[in-house]
Amino acid sequence: MSLLVAGTVAFDAIETPFGKTDRIIGGAATYISLAASYFTSSSRIVSAVGEDFPPEYVGLLKDHGIDTEGLEIKKGEKSFFWSGKYEVDMNYRETLATELNVIENYHPVVPDSYQDSEFLMLGNLLPDVQIAVIEQLVSRPRLIVLDTMNYWIENTPASLKKAISMVDVLTINDSEARQLSGEYSLPRAAKKILTLGPEYLIIKKGENGALLFSGNKMFFAPALPLEDVFDPTGAGDSFAGGFMGYLAKIGEVNFESMKNAIVTGAAMASFCVEKFGTENLVNLDKTIIYNRIRQFSELIRFSDMEIK
Amino acid sequence: MSLLVAGTVAFDAIETPFGKTDRIIGGAATYISLAASYFTSSSRIVSAVGEDFPPEYVGLLKDHGIDTEGLEIKKGEKSFFWSGKYEVDMNYRETLATELNVIENYHPVVPDSYQDSEFLMLGNLLPDVQIAVIEQLVSRPRLIVLDTMNYWIENTPASLKKAISMVDVLTINDSEARQLSGEYSLPRAAKKILTLGPEYLIIKKGENGALLFSGNKMFFAPALPLEDVFDPTGAGDSFAGGFMGYLAKIGEVNFESMKNAIVTGAAMASFCVEKFGTENLVNLDKTIIYNRIRQFSELIRFSDMEIK
Repeated sequence: MSLLVAGTVAFDAIETPFGKTDRIIGGAATYISLAASYFTSSSRIVSAVGEDFPPEYVGLLKDHGIDTEGLEIKKGEKSFFWSGKYEVDMNYRETLATELNVIENYHPVVPDSYQDSEFLMLGNLLPDVQIAVIEQLVSRPRLIVLDTMNYWIENTPASLKKAISMVDVLTINDSEARQLSGEYSLPRAAKKILTLGPEYLIIKKGENGALLFSGNKMFFAPALPLEDVFDPTGAGDSFAGGFMGYLAKIGEVNFESMKNAIVTGAAMASFCVEKFGTENLVNLDKTIIYNRIRQFSELIRFSDMEIK
Repeated sequence: MSLLVAGTVAFDAIETPFGKTDRIIGGAATYISLAASYFTSSSRIVSAVGEDFPPEYVGLLKDHGIDTEGLEIKKGEKSFFWSGKYEVDMNYRETLATELNVIENYHPVVPDSYQDSEFLMLGNLLPDVQIAVIEQLVSRPRLIVLDTMNYWIENTPASLKKAISMVDVLTINDSEARQLSGEYSLPRAAKKILTLGPEYLIIKKGENGALLFSGNKMFFAPALPLEDVFDPTGAGDSFAGGFMGYLAKIGEVNFESMKNAIVTGAAMASFCVEKFGTENLVNLDKTIIYNRIRQFSELIRFSDMEIK
């Protein structure tokens, strides 16, 4: 089934204890659509870049079967640029530069050919832009998933709450869930956040896995403990891409299918962090991916307990 | 099968954002043996307290079927005392007081009646005391498990490495595993630590679960996300108690049985943190425990993936 991805397509410059990159392709929509491309052959991007964006980067997306009709190339403008430096504990990073550029006054335009999209992933962006994408769709997609970050919780809380009320699934990380709810306990935070509208909440805990909440149900998927983590940039977006790609592939939306979608997302995130930027994400195949998903099953499988 | 527990029996005074306690019963051997008591009817303690230790606290252990012949009550001495204050993020705590007292020059004495112990759990203590317990046992137990902490990694590294080389299983937390190995990646840290001697390594990650390593095998058990965490004191020791109790109960020692033992340990830790001190741990029964273990299975269970 078709997947529409809205989010940034951008330049990143990344420094980690293991090396650094020049300006490379980055942005939420890039990671999401690349990760999803291994599961659905019909994905589309709504985003904008400046005229400095290299055609070969657009070509990279097209090579993965991603429809870029909705990727506007704005003359006279520059692409969004982010630069950051990670510590040895890669949960901590310093932002060295954020240049919004083309994103600053971005008004998304959803092409007519995207109107039949059945799944919508709203990558981290201004909540008003996320709302504008939803409102441009004539018929509501079967599933709308929204990702956000602490910046919008702090700076545009009203718009963010409106956006959250319009979607089926919210994905945020653990510190953001605590910030948004004012509750430290994640099960308590989840209960509060679910009253804002979404049927499902995914709390991402980075190297400590992810939790899915809906009603009174709870599911946990671990992250795979890796020998080498080179660059965590894009991990959350690769997770979202694997999650949406899996659901778009099987076309079933319920708590059980979301469990598998989360494990798939965790697998895609694990590939992402093993190399810089999108380097690993662009060179996968189904066998590699399913072997990794099997590693997740093996990691947590234990036999039933003797009960007596 | 019989379980010998060596470790502190002590007073704790605890402050958390949810309240504070006076001096209550604490210590590694207390939590370990109480948690294990639900699985094995034959557990014994080697430890020492001062004459200030209330007989009713010793009675509490006896009521749980724990043999206290090896718990020396030293005339003219005071019991070990620890006091600490936890922050909202209970991974962080401030130690307000540590009075070693009777533990300062403790020479353990293993009673003859304990010589047939098949399982030995060495709770966090001076490595030389842990070694002395092992050396007093005429025939080696089937399984020796050692817990330690950063203090001994920093202050008595040679004794600690000797102690580690004598045991089958080492349990430490993630930051200690990194400190001991000099490796940030936990799988890399595990490989290095396993060269020190133990066949198995358990890395405890608090609210983020626990990892088991042996050879090239790896298993992960989550912690149960709880609505209320009142006091994390003793969680790691309750984990060790559930782990050892389960193994002593089923009498099988291999990677598969250790998986179940770790889930059992995680369940016991989850009970421990829901109330102050040992309050919850002393009032459980098998039905409550096995229902909780089932929650762990449900938390992580997902169906096999479609692979095509």
